[in-house]
Amino acid sequence: MNLLHDTLSAIVPQDAAFRAQAHRRLEALTMPYWALGRLLDLAEDLAGITRSMRPPIARKAIFTMAGDHGVVAEGVSKYPQEVTPQMVYNFVAGGAGINALARQVGATVTVVDMGVAGDMSGLAAAGKILSRRIGPGTRNMAEGPAMSREEAVRTVEAGIDIARKAAETVDLFGTGDMGIGNTTPSSAIVAAFSGHPAAEVTGHGTGIDNEQFTHKVRIIEKCLRINRPDPKDGLDVLAKVGGFEIGGIAGLILGAAALKKPVVIDGFISAAGALIAHALCPAAAEYMIAAHRSVEQGHRIALELLGKQPLIDLDLRLGEGTGAALAMNFIEAAVRVLTEVATFDEAMVSKASA
Amino acid sequence: MNLLHDTLSAIVPQDAAFRAQAHRRLEALTMPYWALGRLLDLAEDLAGITRSMRPPIARKAIFTMAGDHGVVAEGVSKYPQEVTPQMVYNFVAGGAGINALARQVGATVTVVDMGVAGDMSGLAAAGKILSRRIGPGTRNMAEGPAMSREEAVRTVEAGIDIARKAAETVDLFGTGDMGIGNTTPSSAIVAAFSGHPAAEVTGHGTGIDNEQFTHKVRIIEKCLRINRPDPKDGLDVLAKVGGFEIGGIAGLILGAAALKKPVVIDGFISAAGALIAHALCPAAAEYMIAAHRSVEQGHRIALELLGKQPLIDLDLRLGEGTGAALAMNFIEAAVRVLTEVATFDEAMVSKASA
Repeated sequence: MNLLHDTLSAIVPQDAAFRAQAHRRLEALTMPYWALGRLLDLAEDLAGITRSMRPPIARKAIFTMAGDHGVVAEGVSKYPQEVTPQMVYNFVAGGAGINALARQVGATVTVVDMGVAGDMSGLAAAGKILSRRIGPGTRNMAEGPAMSREEAVRTVEAGIDIARKAAETVDLFGTGDMGIGNTTPSSAIVAAFSGHPAAEVTGHGTGIDNEQFTHKVRIIEKCLRINRPDPKDGLDVLAKVGGFEIGGIAGLILGAAALKKPVVIDGFISAAGALIAHALCPAAAEYMIAAHRSVEQGHRIALELLGKQPLIDLDLRLGEGTGAALAMNFIEAAVRVLTEVATFDEAMVSKASA
Repeated sequence: MNLLHDTLSAIVPQDAAFRAQAHRRLEALTMPYWALGRLLDLAEDLAGITRSMRPPIARKAIFTMAGDHGVVAEGVSKYPQEVTPQMVYNFVAGGAGINALARQVGATVTVVDMGVAGDMSGLAAAGKILSRRIGPGTRNMAEGPAMSREEAVRTVEAGIDIARKAAETVDLFGTGDMGIGNTTPSSAIVAAFSGHPAAEVTGHGTGIDNEQFTHKVRIIEKCLRINRPDPKDGLDVLAKVGGFEIGGIAGLILGAAALKKPVVIDGFISAAGALIAHALCPAAAEYMIAAHRSVEQGHRIALELLGKQPLIDLDLRLGEGTGAALAMNFIEAAVRVLTEVATFDEAMVSKASA
């Protein structure tokens, strides 16, 4: 547990002095007070995260973590499990939503096999994906823990290791996910940490109807009842009702926070990973930027637990990192405002009357 | 009135066949049904506007219309009128919010002097701004019409002419404004068209306190009472309680619509211009993309009248075109999704069960 322990120890809060310096400059820009609203809050965060008045964010990388879920045996998803590996091939071919949106903002996309139920070894050998497989999907958490505690640690350490290896080449991290059935563990994680009943943190995933929804809620209730995850123990929650890709996301976030780099949290599944990271180290939340609010109702509760207000609200529910890619445009914009807009004194513009 | 008349006659609805073709493709993309939500709605709009499955949007131009307002004599703004020309110099020097955000998205910024209270001839002669001045600011609309009906036509035709001259070099238009005091005519315009009392469509502008707010509401009530703008007559509303830059914005929108090109509506003042354009030609609204919802309460009502849901909600209240610039990132993203994401058949990914 050295890597995990060392990483958690390395995470410290944002730098208050850089936040204050950025705040003073943003207040003095040639515009009415704080007239770019939450874009200025974001600029202040970026200064505090990166310890810089010119926050480096040019080199952007999205890591799309893929994994399968034994709980799909309970019929919680509309799509067959084979879609997970098929979508990995689609990512590699550049034809998925995340590829298009990452290209738009100039981010790389790296697909990580955290445990897909299918043979990904060809893609891994060809260097098309990173392989950090824990196994061919989690066990069915409606019958017992999704994974062992030791496996949970391995998922998180895989994410940390990926962030560390990217330390010299990436300024801005983004999370993403792919895994048929993974709104089910995400809802279970939000239920475990929030104490909300399953029905309040469960959504319609990829498009199930009301009858399927009722069934999904019952399965999540069963997973929680059988496993009794301990909300004070992030690894326990991850092991019992999580997923391999969710652990990888948690690790990526912790790794980025330890590097003092911003990490954009994509959607609902990424928020579940962020809750695990937050449980392991509350200060890690200071490095998270919430991309968007999805239509999944559990996402809203997860963001509240993280204390985050998302940047985007466009009814997205795709995952993959697509929301993170979109939000990176605003991060670029915030840095432009901090570094390129003149102050009243610089531009010799008259100030407001008191 | 030939240019205005001809332009209004040239505006036709979006193309239904291209909308339908885009809809079919977007439904077939390798993602759960409509999983990129409002980004897909936007892609469908862009296909319908541009009559293309590859909507051209690369060449982006924001026109920041500047004008002054006689009504500032009533003490409705916190800032002195000299800030309008000072900000024009700031735009030209590249130091304002709009400059930074336009650079981020790769848009040009053209400042148009629609009637600033100050000598802008040097900048115009040097080619740094476009001069379409109607006069050195509007008259005080608390004492009578802000401008004559003939002047109102000239402001709109100036905007149309700017759009027409840009026809060969611009794919995507964005509106913007600068004018101390211009939330006052904007609120009056929204009150005139919506029938809401002034207090419900008035906000705190650049940051006035509650006492100043009460005063501003009284002034807007007086402007409406004295002038009695006719909500069925867009030019009457513009002339009586509008502004030169607001008329220019209305014209730019009508010009873009006649060219079958998308135009991004910035914030509250641009929405007031959009209401004028909409009153002159309801179909023009089909070419408008609402950038954001500002903190000005009248903006929300204006967007409802236009039937538009904005893309961004970040507590912006700057104007200048900053919201339009930010929203252009999403327009790029929507086109990427339409043109670059594979369908289920193309990618050989399994579909959902019925």
